[in-house]
Amino acid sequence: MTLQEAIEKIKPLDQAAMDYTHARWNTLGKPLYSLGRLEEMVTQFAGIYGDKNPRLGKKAVIVMAADNGVVAEGVTQTGQEVTKTVTENMTKNNATICILSSVSGADVFPVDIGIATDCDNPGVWDRKIKYGTDNMLKGPAMSREEAVRAIEVGISMVEELKERGYTLLATGEMGIGNTSTSSAICAVLLDEPVEKVTGKGAGLTNKDLEHKIAVIKESIAVNQVNPADPLDVLSKVGGLDIAGLVGCFIGAAACRVPIFIDGFISSVAALLAQRLAPACDPYLFPSHCSNEPAGRLVLDAMGKQPYILANMCLGEGTGAVMGFTIADYAFKAYWELPSFAQTNFGTYEDLTEQ
Amino acid sequence: MTLQEAIEKIKPLDQAAMDYTHARWNTLGKPLYSLGRLEEMVTQFAGIYGDKNPRLGKKAVIVMAADNGVVAEGVTQTGQEVTKTVTENMTKNNATICILSSVSGADVFPVDIGIATDCDNPGVWDRKIKYGTDNMLKGPAMSREEAVRAIEVGISMVEELKERGYTLLATGEMGIGNTSTSSAICAVLLDEPVEKVTGKGAGLTNKDLEHKIAVIKESIAVNQVNPADPLDVLSKVGGLDIAGLVGCFIGAAACRVPIFIDGFISSVAALLAQRLAPACDPYLFPSHCSNEPAGRLVLDAMGKQPYILANMCLGEGTGAVMGFTIADYAFKAYWELPSFAQTNFGTYEDLTEQ
Repeated sequence: MTLQEAIEKIKPLDQAAMDYTHARWNTLGKPLYSLGRLEEMVTQFAGIYGDKNPRLGKKAVIVMAADNGVVAEGVTQTGQEVTKTVTENMTKNNATICILSSVSGADVFPVDIGIATDCDNPGVWDRKIKYGTDNMLKGPAMSREEAVRAIEVGISMVEELKERGYTLLATGEMGIGNTSTSSAICAVLLDEPVEKVTGKGAGLTNKDLEHKIAVIKESIAVNQVNPADPLDVLSKVGGLDIAGLVGCFIGAAACRVPIFIDGFISSVAALLAQRLAPACDPYLFPSHCSNEPAGRLVLDAMGKQPYILANMCLGEGTGAVMGFTIADYAFKAYWELPSFAQTNFGTYEDLTEQ
Repeated sequence: MTLQEAIEKIKPLDQAAMDYTHARWNTLGKPLYSLGRLEEMVTQFAGIYGDKNPRLGKKAVIVMAADNGVVAEGVTQTGQEVTKTVTENMTKNNATICILSSVSGADVFPVDIGIATDCDNPGVWDRKIKYGTDNMLKGPAMSREEAVRAIEVGISMVEELKERGYTLLATGEMGIGNTSTSSAICAVLLDEPVEKVTGKGAGLTNKDLEHKIAVIKESIAVNQVNPADPLDVLSKVGGLDIAGLVGCFIGAAACRVPIFIDGFISSVAALLAQRLAPACDPYLFPSHCSNEPAGRLVLDAMGKQPYILANMCLGEGTGAVMGFTIADYAFKAYWELPSFAQTNFGTYEDLTEQ
């Protein structure tokens, strides 16, 4: 599916399925609407699946891994070889995302969409667009055509996983330097000062942070980024991992699969997806609020409230998979709560409008 | 253990155990502090248990069930017979708290601390102080001595469960009318207008809400409640369920067991516990933020940030048990994350102060 085809394929949620599910919640033995966003989540999933009896099926987290040319400017604590190492660790149950995914029984799919070196590991999906982006301080990180191809990698990953029976997705990423690209995109899209949306990523001194901010500012200026054109922003000061994630979000909407957004980097990708394809919005679910300075800002801009506040900023999808657990609770309640008839205490009436 | 004995027994957290756990987090293969509040939770549990290698053990939710005399004033949608019915349903896996507790494998212990009628059910712990409180609109809901005895029921429940091997607790309640008592306590303790801290509970019309507010205001006035004396507030405009919960919080601190606070009603009890015994504070963990109007206000007053934002307001401990799951994630990460040595990518340095 091309990007254009995916965008055209996105349809509104199934209102009849949502109405049915909403009504069924009100037959369950509890004060009306008292499970709040858990109720709303199940109802929204019903609309996404077009199924008035929605069930949770197999869960997967897609981890987009790529390197960023801007790392040459010294904006990170570690070198870019860490991108490949951690991505390969994900195939050996030796990365944080594997440990946290196991709590909700989700599978982890790492994707090499642009690691700087070859990654001959059968557990990593080889979808390399190029060996890392170019240094955005010297010019565009990638061409517009490469950005579109990377987005289409994300779309195809969702198609492939849906075919394999996955019905609930989350996003993650691994890419040294990707808080720099995310902050650059964030500053441009939200028209905010770079200082406000840039943090220390995986660890920097105050002096290094100043340098990182200067590099991001200069990159935006050098590239004459057009804030009204999401693909221009993405290709000039973004990354291949972010582009792949944009594709995951648009692909999930096209394939009618709910998808949880992880922290700062995933949220920036989700914001780009929203700008490129506004109709994808109801398919996208927040999870936690990143501890990066602009974590909350990006969620606010998308109109999404996090479910979890844990001040995490690890990436890899570690917050998004905790969103799976919120879904586990919601569906457990929806399918196992006794009805009013079974609880022996009559019904509650909806008096909220009276 | 008497209330006084429990208060005197509360000790500070074990700093050596916390230092050890904090340091061990920094040997795990991830950017330093990137698991944020998950790291802090494990470290705090280490300090509570006095164990530098803390483990999660058996989990229980204590549900304090009691009736409230003020229900005679028509401040609720349902009658007080619902208190007993739902409490008994908890012994038959037929209540919401049972369903949600099962996600994290927690056991549910309903306690009759003041249901208005006899509750001959072996699954409900019989700790009745009296057959519901008196109508607070006409005078004190209970005597000061009854309030203390109810608090001591909570303390003894924690002692009993600790003896049975439970090392992690959560609080819940069931009591028709208990948003009225909670709003009354909240208004007095926080010196806020009753209008601001009162909601529709399990469902009221706008007119009924006005009436509920008037009843609460009048109850506070009639009883000449002293905001500086938590026991005065609790006994005059509180409930036996809330008193029992106060005891759970103080008892948990005395017995060195971490305890999750549920929503509005539990939070009000936790605030009372904090005022009665400030040293109990680090043993008390927030869970979600209730959708009741004053949910956030009470947490803010306690200096606690919720982990979960789900707009729930069901009570019974349904939000608190979701806090158990946050602990599950935290301990899973702490014990299963590979070390830096295992991840093959060197270490991250702590540069935050530089």
